Amino acid sequence: MRAWILTIGNELLIGRIVNTNASWLAKKLVFLGFDVRRIIVVPDDKKDISEELKRALEKADVVVTTGGLGPTYDDMTSDAVAYTLDKKLVLDEKALSMVEQFYKTKNMELTPERIKMAYVPEGARVIENPVGAAPAYMVEVDGKTIIVLPGVPAEMKAIFEKHVEEYLRKKYAPHTFIVEYNVIVKGVPESGLAPFINELSRKHRDVYIKSHPKGHETSNPVLDIRVFVSSNKSGDEAEEKAKKIIDEIIEEARRLGGIIVESGRTL
Amino acid sequence: MRAWILTIGNELLIGRIVNTNASWLAKKLVFLGFDVRRIIVVPDDKKDISEELKRALEKADVVVTTGGLGPTYDDMTSDAVAYTLDKKLVLDEKALSMVEQFYKTKNMELTPERIKMAYVPEGARVIENPVGAAPAYMVEVDGKTIIVLPGVPAEMKAIFEKHVEEYLRKKYAPHTFIVEYNVIVKGVPESGLAPFINELSRKHRDVYIKSHPKGHETSNPVLDIRVFVSSNKSGDEAEEKAKKIIDEIIEEARRLGGIIVESGRTL
Repeated sequence: MRAWILTIGNELLIGRIVNTNASWLAKKLVFLGFDVRRIIVVPDDKKDISEELKRALEKADVVVTTGGLGPTYDDMTSDAVAYTLDKKLVLDEKALSMVEQFYKTKNMELTPERIKMAYVPEGARVIENPVGAAPAYMVEVDGKTIIVLPGVPAEMKAIFEKHVEEYLRKKYAPHTFIVEYNVIVKGVPESGLAPFINELSRKHRDVYIKSHPKGHETSNPVLDIRVFVSSNKSGDEAEEKAKKIIDEIIEEARRLGGIIVESGRTL
Repeated sequence: MRAWILTIGNELLIGRIVNTNASWLAKKLVFLGFDVRRIIVVPDDKKDISEELKRALEKADVVVTTGGLGPTYDDMTSDAVAYTLDKKLVLDEKALSMVEQFYKTKNMELTPERIKMAYVPEGARVIENPVGAAPAYMVEVDGKTIIVLPGVPAEMKAIFEKHVEEYLRKKYAPHTFIVEYNVIVKGVPESGLAPFINELSRKHRDVYIKSHPKGHETSNPVLDIRVFVSSNKSGDEAEEKAKKIIDEIIEEARRLGGIIVESGRTL
């Protein structure tokens, strides 16, 4: 099952903000068993958002968007989603009462800018925002799911964990088991271990092995090597396979004069 | 002038790493006067990299890639660039001597994995990596420039600042002046200031105004409002315009009962 993440917002494209939303979501989706194939940062522009959303719907089973749901003129995600799906943007009664409730408890009136947040593409299923004003929503299209979340990290995370995660697990990934092991090796440069890791990767096509150089390639080489295994059968099967491969890497690293700093299960 | 950033690497798509390379590069490019329209995270997959590179070349004047230049089997950026441009991957003598030199000073031999880093698309101009093994390079295609950088942040930054920045400034943006002002307002929710900011934005199409909610929308609203202006004439013109708009926002924020925490030039 493939997922794409679209993070919407000019502030990301001018480098003001580091895209922590994307990495947080990616980790969550991978853990649910998704193959995350793209993270795309898109400007606050209806045409751009629509272009990327269209591509995402062609290639992915699940598309998660963040950002562009707020009250200002440049929050145009819902407009773009509706346009892409050829649906009308409609005032959702449930969303309106959420927005209304949110401001009512603060003794604040409903303005056109606040009401705007309750407009969603026709047919969308509105999701409560437990910590902010802008409701999120899901749209189902031909068996694919678009999940539209706000960009404020606390709101995005709360909505995903409270309302989205379990839904995706049930619908797309009821039987996925993910295990990752790592080993940190000192004293062997990345290029020294590369032939062995290349060979292992060719042998185990369903396993993802990646070495991250942490120190300096030659004067102080430190490698964090990760072995990532998913299984549709059982956690035990994934665990066994990851452990076996990490043991082979440890053996080779020692043969090359490396010191094992630490090793263990990381996911 | 438009720029796209492609950051290549599975580790970004599984959420292991936050994409700080992209935000660093975006800031640099914006400061050079580029309109950064996309940041795309692409897996270590030749077809995927090629697909995105092709799109980027259609839409942008400058494409910067990071990642996938190392010695392991899954470092396939150069392969993908060559494939996309329909060029051969050739052993570059200058690149080879850089790689050779790098390992020689460490008393390490040249292996096939290390030599692989000296293969670049035919016609590429190789750029020295002052802090690591993998050389970077540029390719010019129909007046457009592809800049291919390694993914290790220290290497990427050193190469960009030492060899790329000045080149781009001279070629694409000899007369761009960027100014940004901000103001931090306490006591006014984002949706309260939204009508005024929307109106300002409609009036000044060449100015980018964005409010970032820092506190809680209602119980403790804190807004960081940024006014971003670029001018092709002079820094003074950009400065004057940004200052005028920020003053209008301050006046409106005060009228709404807001407290100005701080304000000043940020870029």
